Amino acid sequence: MVPRLYVPLLGASDRTIDLPDDEAGHLRRVLRVKAGAAIRLFDGRGREVAARVAAVLPDRVVAEIGDPVDAAPEWGVRVTLAQAVLKGDKIDEVIRDAVMMGVSAMQLLVTARTEVPAPAWSRGRRLERWQRIAVSSAKQCGRAVVPAVLAPAPLGDVLAAAEPSAAKLMLVEPSAARAGSGTALPAEAPAAAVVLVGPEGGWSAEEVALAMASGCLPLSLGPRTLRADAAAVVALSVMQYAWRLGARD
Amino acid sequence: MVPRLYVPLLGASDRTIDLPDDEAGHLRRVLRVKAGAAIRLFDGRGREVAARVAAVLPDRVVAEIGDPVDAAPEWGVRVTLAQAVLKGDKIDEVIRDAVMMGVSAMQLLVTARTEVPAPAWSRGRRLERWQRIAVSSAKQCGRAVVPAVLAPAPLGDVLAAAEPSAAKLMLVEPSAARAGSGTALPAEAPAAAVVLVGPEGGWSAEEVALAMASGCLPLSLGPRTLRADAAAVVALSVMQYAWRLGARD
Repeated sequence: MVPRLYVPLLGASDRTIDLPDDEAGHLRRVLRVKAGAAIRLFDGRGREVAARVAAVLPDRVVAEIGDPVDAAPEWGVRVTLAQAVLKGDKIDEVIRDAVMMGVSAMQLLVTARTEVPAPAWSRGRRLERWQRIAVSSAKQCGRAVVPAVLAPAPLGDVLAAAEPSAAKLMLVEPSAARAGSGTALPAEAPAAAVVLVGPEGGWSAEEVALAMASGCLPLSLGPRTLRADAAAVVALSVMQYAWRLGARD
Repeated sequence: MVPRLYVPLLGASDRTIDLPDDEAGHLRRVLRVKAGAAIRLFDGRGREVAARVAAVLPDRVVAEIGDPVDAAPEWGVRVTLAQAVLKGDKIDEVIRDAVMMGVSAMQLLVTARTEVPAPAWSRGRRLERWQRIAVSSAKQCGRAVVPAVLAPAPLGDVLAAAEPSAAKLMLVEPSAARAGSGTALPAEAPAAAVVLVGPEGGWSAEEVALAMASGCLPLSLGPRTLRADAAAVVALSVMQYAWRLGARD
């Protein structure tokens, strides 16, 4: 498989480019590529080009840029996954899966029942780490778009910042569904959507009320309570299917 | 939360029962329950009862059995996930997720591109380990049914053993979809379904041909190649949604 490299500064008119240090180091030390090797470069905003290694120098690797190529198709709906921070490294897998599925952005949430203290993510460059996971997943799944990973924010702020036209969906437990929430997505795909997924302990009653007052559609998927780290991929799978996201026809 | 214990020998007319050693040990040493504590018992075949701890003795724990209770609803379609063995422990997560979603059985597959040598699963009680993962996931997600985990078998054997009326779906890559496979499930839910998910390297051409000759519907979900360990939960999510599996109305 041809290595795909993330080159955010890839210019539209560049003929050659010095690869970013981390990608150059990976090519030189791990993949041990030589001049002439075929590679692909993508800018994280949807552009991907064929390229070849022009020179492997001690301090840099130069690529010669070829023709644009088709990356994996993007969804026709801008979907933001707004996911509560989870315990341990579970959020890493959620980010990886959400990027693979096709979200446009990953918004982390601080909720009433978030069990991870703020210092655990504000220290130690967690946000940079999460963004690197998004880059890594984009490389693996063939996307030329790297979704932004946005720092944890309260639910109210995230709801207020949503595009006015976005469909807002809140994943709720099956017991809430019995109390009147929906089990089906809007039949027509919206232009944009925000899907809210809670923490291990679920949403507080105040959060549900706030979301409903902000026009959220409560949505329950299936008869069982899903694990907090599995709910997002279930929701995104259903959105992709029901709205035919990424379909070529 | 009331502890849910797996008691396969739970009899329909039992008034008291000695709990299995592993469950008794867990109650005594980890949960440190006393006589009188509320528990629930399920038999792995769909029956669940309220119970209470009647006596905590040095060598056994006795439960007094109460009234039947409703477990999480089961899907109305018997779904078998036939999943190729994956590298490392990735299959563990697939089993856990498949049980959570609602499969009736988990059939492991040996395929042309399965990269795990047979001794790696035939030695060391891997099948028992996988079955324990299924029990653990059933406890966590509230199911009273523990799906059987069936030992790795070749694709041909699994296809031949499928119920004649079962819908057979083979997950294929998006490139195969462009060559003519479907992107939609049958509109009507069948009585039973087998969904086939390949290994990291995908299906061989012979396996695809064999499956098609056996009446499989090739199915592609979304525009990107899904990770082998993520494909099953995506497929099961879509089946649950499209066929309204587990819906209460």
